[in-house]
Amino acid sequence: MAVLYRRVALIGIGLIASSMALAMRQQGLAGEITGHAKSPQTRATALELGLCDRVFDTAAAAVQGADLVVLAVPVGAMAALAAEIGPHLAPGVTVTDVGSVKQAVIDAVAPHIPEGVAFVPAHPLAGTEHSGPRAGFAALFQNRWCLLTPTEQSTPEATARLRALWEGMGSNVDEMDAPHHDLVLAVVSHTPHLIAYTMVGVADHLRRVSNSEVIKYSASGFRDFTRIAASDPTMWRDVFLTNREATLDILGRFTEELFALQRAIRMGDGDMLHAYFTRTRAIRRGIIEAGQDTAAPDFGRIAAGGPGKAGGR
Amino acid sequence: MAVLYRRVALIGIGLIASSMALAMRQQGLAGEITGHAKSPQTRATALELGLCDRVFDTAAAAVQGADLVVLAVPVGAMAALAAEIGPHLAPGVTVTDVGSVKQAVIDAVAPHIPEGVAFVPAHPLAGTEHSGPRAGFAALFQNRWCLLTPTEQSTPEATARLRALWEGMGSNVDEMDAPHHDLVLAVVSHTPHLIAYTMVGVADHLRRVSNSEVIKYSASGFRDFTRIAASDPTMWRDVFLTNREATLDILGRFTEELFALQRAIRMGDGDMLHAYFTRTRAIRRGIIEAGQDTAAPDFGRIAAGGPGKAGGR
Repeated sequence: MAVLYRRVALIGIGLIASSMALAMRQQGLAGEITGHAKSPQTRATALELGLCDRVFDTAAAAVQGADLVVLAVPVGAMAALAAEIGPHLAPGVTVTDVGSVKQAVIDAVAPHIPEGVAFVPAHPLAGTEHSGPRAGFAALFQNRWCLLTPTEQSTPEATARLRALWEGMGSNVDEMDAPHHDLVLAVVSHTPHLIAYTMVGVADHLRRVSNSEVIKYSASGFRDFTRIAASDPTMWRDVFLTNREATLDILGRFTEELFALQRAIRMGDGDMLHAYFTRTRAIRRGIIEAGQDTAAPDFGRIAAGGPGKAGGR
Repeated sequence: MAVLYRRVALIGIGLIASSMALAMRQQGLAGEITGHAKSPQTRATALELGLCDRVFDTAAAAVQGADLVVLAVPVGAMAALAAEIGPHLAPGVTVTDVGSVKQAVIDAVAPHIPEGVAFVPAHPLAGTEHSGPRAGFAALFQNRWCLLTPTEQSTPEATARLRALWEGMGSNVDEMDAPHHDLVLAVVSHTPHLIAYTMVGVADHLRRVSNSEVIKYSASGFRDFTRIAASDPTMWRDVFLTNREATLDILGRFTEELFALQRAIRMGDGDMLHAYFTRTRAIRRGIIEAGQDTAAPDFGRIAAGGPGKAGGR
C-alpha cells in the first residue's frame, strides 16, 4: 500500500497506538513513526519493540514535523495534551484521536487546534482486556469498525486520508456525528462494561460464597463478565465521566427493564420470561449475519495471534 | 477406560445429553445408550448421529433395563418426568440429572424415587449458546466442573460411580449441598445471564439507535452479552423460576451496587470508579490462574471443534 503519512506521531503508547504502529508498518502506510509516552519505561518498550523509530520526552517534541498526530491517551487527559501540543502544530497537519467518547474529546481538543490544522476525531471499535505497549498486535483492527465523527475542523481531504489509513489497517469505516456516536457506544459498549464491573463487584462482596468458589466455577456467564471487567481502569473511568448523560440514560432504561424481569421471576411469570428470552435470540442471529461474530462455539482457549477480538472500549 | 454402566438411558436429548453420549462412546464408559425425547425428529436425529443405540417413544420404555438414568430435560419438566418413570425403576438403578438448579430438582424428583434406587443430582458447568442434539460434542466437559449435590437418596457407591463417569468424560468433580450450589450458581451464572438478556432487550427497545447499528457496532462488550442471551429460552425460564430466591437475592445486591456506580458517574467521582475497576481486575487474574480461562485475547473467530467453551447454564 502507498505511504499515506510521511511522519506519524503517536502520543500515548498503549494497546491501540502500539497496534496502529504494527499495522501501519505491516502495510507500509507511514514513512516514519515517532512517539511520546509519559513513562520512560513505555518509551523504552516502544523502541525495543520497534513501534516507534524515535521517542521523545514530551508530546510537544514528538509532534514536530509530523503530518499526522494521533492522540491515544485516556479521554480525561486529552485537554491538557491538546493545550501542550497546540502551539507546535504547523498548518497542513492532521490531528486525530482514538478516544471511546467523541463529544468530550471534541470539546477538549478543538479549542487548541490552530488555524490551518485539521482535526478528525476517530474511534476504532477494537480492543482487548489487555493494555500497554506490549498488548498490541497488527491484526487488532481487521474487520472491525472505525467511526469518524468529523467536525467543522475536519477538511474533506483530511477526513478522506484518515479513512484510507484506517481502511489500510483493515477497518471498516463509518462517519456519524459525535452525539449519536456517544449514544450508540453507551448502548453497545459503555453500559455493558459498567454492568460487567458491577457483577464482578457483587461476587467479590458476597461472603457466603468465597472468591475461590466464584473463580473455580466461573466457567459460565460470569467468565465473560470478568473478561470485560478486566479492562483498563483509567480509560473506563474517563469513559463514564465524559459520556455521562448517555450512559445514565441507558442505565435508567436498563434498570427499568431489569425490574420488569425481576418482577416476572418473583411473580412466577414464565410466559413473560420465555417470550423475552426468545426475542433476544434474534438480535444474536443478526450479529452473526452481520459478520461481527461466528456461530461457532467460542472455545476461548486458543493461542494469541489471528484476527482481533473486539473487547476493550 | 472401563465400562461404568451397562446401559445408560438419556431422557431428553439436547446439548448436554448428546455431548454425554459422544463423550461416553469416545471413552468407552457405557455399554449401551438408550434414549427418549418428546420430539420424533429429535429421536430420529439421535439415531442418525449414533448418539443412542435405541430410542423409545416414552421415557418409561427408555429406562427399562438401564442401570443409569440421566434426566436431561428443563428443570420445570423434571417433576412430571420423575412421576412417569418412577414405577419403572428397578432396585440398584442410579438416577441422576443435569439441571442447572439443584434444590428444585431434588424437590421435584426425590418423592418419585423408589426404595433401593439411588438418586445423585449433578450439574455439569458446561454448555454453549447452542441447543439441540446436533449441538453436542464430546469435548464439552473437558476440564469443566461438574457439581454433585448428594442427598440421603445418594448411596456412597452410586455417588462414587457417577463421579467416575464425569471424570471419565473429562470433568473435574466437586460435591456440595444443594442450597449452596444454587447460591453459587446464582452468582456465577444465573444473574449474569439475566443481566445479559436485559441489556440485549434494552438495545432492542431503543428507537434512537437502530438495531442495525447495534448489530454493526456490537464488536464490544455487547457482543459477549448477545452470546449469553442467545441461550435456550425454556431452560433459562425454568432456571429463574426454580432458583428464584437466590437469584432475587443476588439481583438485589447487583442493583444496589449498580446504583452506587451510577451515583459516582452522576457525581463525577472518578476516584471511586477507578478504585472499583481496579479491584475487579484482581478477580479476573484469579480466574486465569485457576485455569478456567487463558490470558490470551479471545479472538472469537475460530472454527468449531477443540475443547469446550463454557457458556450455557
